[in-house]
Amino acid sequence: MEQYLKKLKECKKIVAALEPKIKNSLLRQMAQALRDNVKQIIEENKKDLIEGKNNALNSALIDRLLLDESRVESMAKALDEIATLKEPVGRVLEGWVVPSGIRIEKVSIPIGVIAIIYESRPNVTSDTAALCLKSGNVCVLKGGKEANFSNNVIAQILQNVLVANNLPKEIISLLPDNTREGVAKLIKMDKYIDLVIPRGGEALIKYISENSSVPVVKHDKGLCHLYIDKEAKIEDAIKIAINAKCQRTGVCNAIETLLVHQEIAQHILPLLKQEFDKQKTELRGCEKTQMIISCLEASSKDWDTEYLDNILSIKIIEDTDAAIEHISEFGSGHSDSIITENYSTAEYFLNSVDSACVYVNASTRFTDGGEFGFGAEVGISTNKLHARGPMGINDLTTYKFKIYGKGHARD
Amino acid sequence: MEQYLKKLKECKKIVAALEPKIKNSLLRQMAQALRDNVKQIIEENKKDLIEGKNNALNSALIDRLLLDESRVESMAKALDEIATLKEPVGRVLEGWVVPSGIRIEKVSIPIGVIAIIYESRPNVTSDTAALCLKSGNVCVLKGGKEANFSNNVIAQILQNVLVANNLPKEIISLLPDNTREGVAKLIKMDKYIDLVIPRGGEALIKYISENSSVPVVKHDKGLCHLYIDKEAKIEDAIKIAINAKCQRTGVCNAIETLLVHQEIAQHILPLLKQEFDKQKTELRGCEKTQMIISCLEASSKDWDTEYLDNILSIKIIEDTDAAIEHISEFGSGHSDSIITENYSTAEYFLNSVDSACVYVNASTRFTDGGEFGFGAEVGISTNKLHARGPMGINDLTTYKFKIYGKGHARD
Repeated sequence: MEQYLKKLKECKKIVAALEPKIKNSLLRQMAQALRDNVKQIIEENKKDLIEGKNNALNSALIDRLLLDESRVESMAKALDEIATLKEPVGRVLEGWVVPSGIRIEKVSIPIGVIAIIYESRPNVTSDTAALCLKSGNVCVLKGGKEANFSNNVIAQILQNVLVANNLPKEIISLLPDNTREGVAKLIKMDKYIDLVIPRGGEALIKYISENSSVPVVKHDKGLCHLYIDKEAKIEDAIKIAINAKCQRTGVCNAIETLLVHQEIAQHILPLLKQEFDKQKTELRGCEKTQMIISCLEASSKDWDTEYLDNILSIKIIEDTDAAIEHISEFGSGHSDSIITENYSTAEYFLNSVDSACVYVNASTRFTDGGEFGFGAEVGISTNKLHARGPMGINDLTTYKFKIYGKGHARD
Repeated sequence: MEQYLKKLKECKKIVAALEPKIKNSLLRQMAQALRDNVKQIIEENKKDLIEGKNNALNSALIDRLLLDESRVESMAKALDEIATLKEPVGRVLEGWVVPSGIRIEKVSIPIGVIAIIYESRPNVTSDTAALCLKSGNVCVLKGGKEANFSNNVIAQILQNVLVANNLPKEIISLLPDNTREGVAKLIKMDKYIDLVIPRGGEALIKYISENSSVPVVKHDKGLCHLYIDKEAKIEDAIKIAINAKCQRTGVCNAIETLLVHQEIAQHILPLLKQEFDKQKTELRGCEKTQMIISCLEASSKDWDTEYLDNILSIKIIEDTDAAIEHISEFGSGHSDSIITENYSTAEYFLNSVDSACVYVNASTRFTDGGEFGFGAEVGISTNKLHARGPMGINDLTTYKFKIYGKGHARD
């Protein structure tokens, strides 16, 4: 593996030096290549589906795996769109002249070699390869074993475009040893890998965070809260609660727990229940909640659970401090929202909740690269450092200082 | 230890919510407290000095340990200066409105709990405590055992100021278990510690990078290069070479290797030797160098060695590509400089060398928080992510997104 990683280090320089128009042309050629090879992709994908069924994968996983003509077209479109994004490399982030007269520029540059470890969806292969290429990085992709045939054919199609343009195919690499042992080795290779991004279940992310000597940007769970303050606009609160829970339930930016101020609970909970019943949402309430509406009992485990399902836990709390306290204890630092018309309460919540995205009078569902206007989604980071919250393509860059002198020596 | 770290987590909220003027007043009170207690500090420091002599510490280490009235005054002044820095928390880094009408602000916030592991110099205790306080962070300090008495008394003086202001003393903490085992435990506590900054020898940094599950910002070695291109201004090249090597030799931003273009070597090397001889610099040259000037022979190990001493290795290379290649192989990604009057060569070098600080026609000695105008030095990061190169106080912050809606639900 070390031999292979050495090769990647050489590729770094090549991809970092590509002009924007070359990178964009490569991306468009790759999009076209996916379209031209749609039959082969679907054929290889079928092999994964057959193996998946043999291994008794559930229908949701099978659906994630499935590629058809329209899904391949979406993959191609995504590459075309990435080609239109603003060049992320070479942005002058800051620049100044110091008293000695030297001029300093802080300039965005590629990170280098990025390893991405992900599960099931084969479109992640082309998406992340394209995002890395656009940002001047070499990528090492390690997809789920269940999507092996699909990922291989997609990577090969993209690599063929590189080769046709006289570029080394290793700029877009699949991890050669696609096993747990391969991953275990990879995340110790800090000499060659500059960043690892795990996207997947909690166990995967925990394993990588604890064992990697390469810096990690996590895409961890979202245990999000909506807090309805006593001074909330009732109609906004209901609309946003339904949206944050029900618009899509299997996603990290949906809420799991609704916190309701005790002074508004009696009035709003029956109205909320009416709407949630229409959505067939399973409600699990604290003791006080159960005294107002009929629902299941929330156990202490509920506050700590990311359902990823149409289930909502509800807790009546004393005041805003108690809401912040609850979020601090059980939240995952992803997205949390307050509904209030009170200026000071809103400011206090925004400043006190230590999450990547803190909202006032809006749904947590907006935590998304697309909604943020980033154009393409790298992921949603639950790191506190380097990148936090929705990651745009600029988050796949770091910076260097360029310093311009006129024969300057230090006094 | 977990009990103690839980307490720190509670302190996070308190220190993050302090108004700038309160933080600045605390810093000024701390400066005054150091001045008021100078005798006690010197007394405790003497105990370290005696133990150090008993343990046969060398004179350089003893000098690093020593505190006298003027050094304590410098420590106090540093705190006063940190109080005058611009508030690092709450800066709006970006802000925009998305098509749906929600307004997004990316705002700087404290990182949380920062652990700093360092060696000998006791002034690091007050400096880093102050930098963390100013940036709204809780700090856990782990100094060298040889400075135990000094660090304890300094921390206690700072803590007394906190207590006198009705703040928990744990905002500035010394690691209670000041042993290797204590550090080993600490760097696994990612639930409580948000960042660890090791400052010290290579072994310490390697150990922490490889074993920490907490994100690390390294302050690693500096193997810096100066490349004299064939189109260099001779007088600039000589002045900068002397400055970069000899102005201070025991520092990370001094050069270790001089790369000289073959077409200029015959002319410039004798001139360089003349100047370096005045500085009593030991020169170790490659074979070609030895054919031009008399000097020791450089072994292959020399290209890989941070001397931290008045020693310079010299290599004659074919062209700029060979210089970049050498730097890529042996450099530590810290600071590297080219001397040239050729525009394209300068641009090529600035873009191709993957170091935190890349210079043209200036000495690498400028890689320094003070010289960069940051006001106070947190360290020089050799990380690629989060912070790279000289770290100012702003690098002790991260960010959150504040999102302002008007009852927004996602479509």
